[in-house]
Amino acid sequence: MSTPISERKLANAIRVLSFDAVQKANSGHPGAPMGMADIGEVLWRKFLKHNPADPHWPNRDRFVLSNGHGSMLIYALLHLTGYDLSIEDLKQFRQLHSKTPGHPELGYTPGVETTTGPLGQGIANAVGFAIAEKTLAAQFNRDGHNIIDHHTYAFLGDGCLMEGISHEVCSLAGTLSLGKLVFYYDDNGISIDGDVEGWFTDDTQKRFEAYGWQVIKVDGHDTDAITNATEEALAETTKPTMIICKTIIGVGSPNKQGKAASHGAPLGDDEIILTRDELAWKHAPFELDDEIYEAWDGKVKGDVLQKNWEADFEAYQKAYPELAAELKRRLSGELPEGFEQTATDYIAQCQAQGEDVASRKASFNAINTLQPLLPELMGGSADLAGSNLTLFKGAKGIETDADGNYIYYGVREFGMTAIANGIALHGGFIPYVATFLMFMEYARNAVRMGALMQQRVIHVYTHDSIGLGEDGPTHQPIEQLTSLRTTPNLRTWRPCDTVESATAWREALLADSNPSALIFSRQTLPHQQRDNEQVANIAKGGYVLAQEQGDNELQAIIIATGSEVGLAMDAYHTLSEQGIGVRVVSMPCAEIYCEQDAAYRESVLPANILARVAVEAAHVDYWYKFVGLDGKVIGMTTYGESAPASELFKEFGITAEAVVDAVSDLVM
Amino acid sequence: MSTPISERKLANAIRVLSFDAVQKANSGHPGAPMGMADIGEVLWRKFLKHNPADPHWPNRDRFVLSNGHGSMLIYALLHLTGYDLSIEDLKQFRQLHSKTPGHPELGYTPGVETTTGPLGQGIANAVGFAIAEKTLAAQFNRDGHNIIDHHTYAFLGDGCLMEGISHEVCSLAGTLSLGKLVFYYDDNGISIDGDVEGWFTDDTQKRFEAYGWQVIKVDGHDTDAITNATEEALAETTKPTMIICKTIIGVGSPNKQGKAASHGAPLGDDEIILTRDELAWKHAPFELDDEIYEAWDGKVKGDVLQKNWEADFEAYQKAYPELAAELKRRLSGELPEGFEQTATDYIAQCQAQGEDVASRKASFNAINTLQPLLPELMGGSADLAGSNLTLFKGAKGIETDADGNYIYYGVREFGMTAIANGIALHGGFIPYVATFLMFMEYARNAVRMGALMQQRVIHVYTHDSIGLGEDGPTHQPIEQLTSLRTTPNLRTWRPCDTVESATAWREALLADSNPSALIFSRQTLPHQQRDNEQVANIAKGGYVLAQEQGDNELQAIIIATGSEVGLAMDAYHTLSEQGIGVRVVSMPCAEIYCEQDAAYRESVLPANILARVAVEAAHVDYWYKFVGLDGKVIGMTTYGESAPASELFKEFGITAEAVVDAVSDLVM
Repeated sequence: MSTPISERKLANAIRVLSFDAVQKANSGHPGAPMGMADIGEVLWRKFLKHNPADPHWPNRDRFVLSNGHGSMLIYALLHLTGYDLSIEDLKQFRQLHSKTPGHPELGYTPGVETTTGPLGQGIANAVGFAIAEKTLAAQFNRDGHNIIDHHTYAFLGDGCLMEGISHEVCSLAGTLSLGKLVFYYDDNGISIDGDVEGWFTDDTQKRFEAYGWQVIKVDGHDTDAITNATEEALAETTKPTMIICKTIIGVGSPNKQGKAASHGAPLGDDEIILTRDELAWKHAPFELDDEIYEAWDGKVKGDVLQKNWEADFEAYQKAYPELAAELKRRLSGELPEGFEQTATDYIAQCQAQGEDVASRKASFNAINTLQPLLPELMGGSADLAGSNLTLFKGAKGIETDADGNYIYYGVREFGMTAIANGIALHGGFIPYVATFLMFMEYARNAVRMGALMQQRVIHVYTHDSIGLGEDGPTHQPIEQLTSLRTTPNLRTWRPCDTVESATAWREALLADSNPSALIFSRQTLPHQQRDNEQVANIAKGGYVLAQEQGDNELQAIIIATGSEVGLAMDAYHTLSEQGIGVRVVSMPCAEIYCEQDAAYRESVLPANILARVAVEAAHVDYWYKFVGLDGKVIGMTTYGESAPASELFKEFGITAEAVVDAVSDLVM
Repeated sequence: MSTPISERKLANAIRVLSFDAVQKANSGHPGAPMGMADIGEVLWRKFLKHNPADPHWPNRDRFVLSNGHGSMLIYALLHLTGYDLSIEDLKQFRQLHSKTPGHPELGYTPGVETTTGPLGQGIANAVGFAIAEKTLAAQFNRDGHNIIDHHTYAFLGDGCLMEGISHEVCSLAGTLSLGKLVFYYDDNGISIDGDVEGWFTDDTQKRFEAYGWQVIKVDGHDTDAITNATEEALAETTKPTMIICKTIIGVGSPNKQGKAASHGAPLGDDEIILTRDELAWKHAPFELDDEIYEAWDGKVKGDVLQKNWEADFEAYQKAYPELAAELKRRLSGELPEGFEQTATDYIAQCQAQGEDVASRKASFNAINTLQPLLPELMGGSADLAGSNLTLFKGAKGIETDADGNYIYYGVREFGMTAIANGIALHGGFIPYVATFLMFMEYARNAVRMGALMQQRVIHVYTHDSIGLGEDGPTHQPIEQLTSLRTTPNLRTWRPCDTVESATAWREALLADSNPSALIFSRQTLPHQQRDNEQVANIAKGGYVLAQEQGDNELQAIIIATGSEVGLAMDAYHTLSEQGIGVRVVSMPCAEIYCEQDAAYRESVLPANILARVAVEAAHVDYWYKFVGLDGKVIGMTTYGESAPASELFKEFGITAEAVVDAVSDLVM
């Protein structure tokens, strides 16, 4: 019998694969994978419950590489443990359409749970995974049936800990007692600018104790210490655990270890020769012994784990057939049967009732109507529940009810949004989150990451324009809608009344590969008349709300959204009476409108009608796409002011009169 | 002799003014001003060195109300201590064009040092004030002449402490030993959603000790305790101080104190009657005794303070006339004589040399050329100095050299940007900050706040498109340029070569009421030929870089920026050879171009030429403003990919060939 391979040697396999792949790509980050190789070896070989043959096994542990620039670490781990990621794939590191892009990207690589790179967001996603696990377990587990029961692990570096989002999410993780969350901090004392002493001197242990975490300090190259610390983490069930691992960045590289030089650039051919010597590594690049593969292989263990769980699930299914079916549905992401019809009926009801209410109130009514059908909804707001109107009847905060359906996120917009991405990624939930539209900006890059990952997260943004009034320019969105509308994969809805608001909610819930931003007013908005076809056409993103009247031939088009649809209709009536052939196009979701076929678009905005006026209480620039060089846009080009809303619309010239004048100018 | 008025009664003057003004406006936040009134009374009457008659006295203490929704607190303090803010002004709270907008707004109210409301950013500005004070003092003070010597105080609430930016800036403040920074935390246990216990359970004392702060806990309604704590804070000269003040929100309101109900809504007429009783306050709304005004008045003390300082400054001026003149210049914000000429000469030199370099390198060269003339430049980067190329020759980090000119901000984009706003607001410096363009998003709302406040902050954003290559979609900007260009007051430059890069730097430095975003490439960009007029026209934001050739009549226009100008020129040559009359318009700053007079714009983009193709490796939507419904835009509508840059431009069809085809289509 041969002696077992040392753990150090197994970790060295990660190191060598990492610096060889970075060298071959001639770009990338060898330092972190080399520095965290020992930690990766311990966690992935001894603790991580996963099945390389089925990366989607629902009860797997979740692993997040929050320091995503160290992507070769996770690629090496996935390759070595037996995922569908070949040595050829590793050779294609950072090449077009490879399975090994520069940063871990969801959907490109089996076993990558979330896209990371933008620092701090990976750990926020991890907090979302842990919340989802805990809540789903509380909702579905029954005595003797722990059908949802896994840990969430994350690796992170100094950068993640400097970012503000780390504060938001780790503070909340402590408050929520996420006992199955374990972080490994790569405390190597080096960031891109060099030794962190000049800019990062936190006592991280004390900081995390202040958040209510268990904190353990270890030598990150001592595998026994890492093993013991992980066992301590697993033993602690009410506090999340931070394991601070003192490491040497790029360890093994004689001239670059411990230095920023190993952080974000290839080691270089000469240094690689020296490093191979230092690690006593005899093999050529991308060649590994079979015994190394055998020692790393996780497929047998993973198969047993998953099979055992499947047997457990069968027992659960027998005992609780309805629960089991519902859990399956929830995990599949499919909406309950009948949801779409109920939502559509509710939309028709809104049209029939014809209420004038603020669209945030219309949103609240929609949530209250649809939520009873959708136990997977996980609501929340960044400390603005009463303003965003997100706290539906029957909402139960998870901080007091483990099986709840609502998160009081506190004043943490960025953390909230990245956590919601994690909850959506985990499966079993459709999260919605809320704040004022302005404070979308605090969360901006997490909105983008959710869109990049095509996660169904619903962003409820209220107080959507100068219409919020007295709070003034710091709170009045101007350029924010444009930013959302130009974000690929994201759908931005700005409804004008109860009917469009309910439609926006239905469409957002049906869009299983898109996040949606639902934009609502603080102020009351008038209901609009529609026939059935018009109601149905709302889902096309843009439609003719009011046709040119009587014998008037079409001369001009008014395009409006949200709170400006009402004043567009006022202008329409005035102009129609003057005999001008004008129509009003309501455009609640411009992105979806642009995806419609040419015939439909021609029916709404005929190409020969160049007298077009767009009106929206937001930055004008976006609308030239629809009105061109010949049209006019009525909107904002400056910041707002603090005053009652009605005065502000006059002050900034966003009025029915201004629309009438603009149309008249164009058709004369 | 009458007995002195109790401090409580003086504080009650703040309370009454606050709830009366909120009631009159029928919106606003009475809770925080009522809860922090005692702290405000102690700080403003006993400690704050300021002169109500001259809010711009350079050596005044800086005060920031980071919980800006409590704006009536600062308005009451300014009114009571004698600033030019009358009782009539207070009656106009939250009304159009009043001096008392809903949140404190710079420039609207004498004595308001920064615009606050977006939570956490006020304390970040305060850290910027403290950095500016410390550095300016180190640069200009001489033995026996402490000409710059003031404190920075900030009030903040739970919201500020939950926001991630509080972590970024307080961590850095500890590292930088900002001993003259004093925070008062309104620890009232209430946020908008209610009792914070469900979402905010940090041990804030421990957290701030982990950052290296002095932390003192007091009863926020015990004026002696607040006084003693403030004295302790002043005695501590190397650590910033956090005074945790246990308070009762809305204290004095019998039915609403200690509750969320007092946070963000008027108390109501009935409750106000009860509150007046509780406070034993006899006066009608907006009426105060003379003795209260006398006890509050800060004008006499302020006059003495400022006169003494002016005498000190005269002595300093005598001893160090050149230093004194330079300090005056620095504080005035005027650039040194000859700066503009030197910059213009450098631009001419760039044109003559004709180097092909990455525009980030062109930026680096410009900084190195201009910085020796501009000691007010305070550089910095969020841990990307080597990639952003911001670390000029002679840069000295302030963490080691108190009189330095460079800040290693760490991985803290949001904190960095809000701190830079504070440094600019303080005076004496022109800050520039840097990160990858993508991570502008982390800092997004601070960019906006600097623009709202019209501060000269220069944002250096490198790695500006898919041209960054292998790092992939998480790092490749798409929609970010549109977001910046639609931000009022902000000027976004995307230069195409060394000449435009140097011009962008010159214009950004000259723009004393605008922040600028300078967008630079990672990859090498070709130099472009220009005559003197073309070089001069760069400053107009857009100009004809290449005229239609020979006898070709103008048929089509290609508009391009940055890295796409090179390929536009390639297309231009091909098309010109085919006999097509085409010109290339380089548009490095579209916002400034749009401010030019109609004649100039007609000379660049003649209205009758509708065959227009815009090309930019960014989201297409922005450019319809320039090409209209008849033109074409070549750019991005999806996220990027991880691959070498040259492959990506082909993959996404952003090539000279695509431009040739688009123009050909339009002119056929």
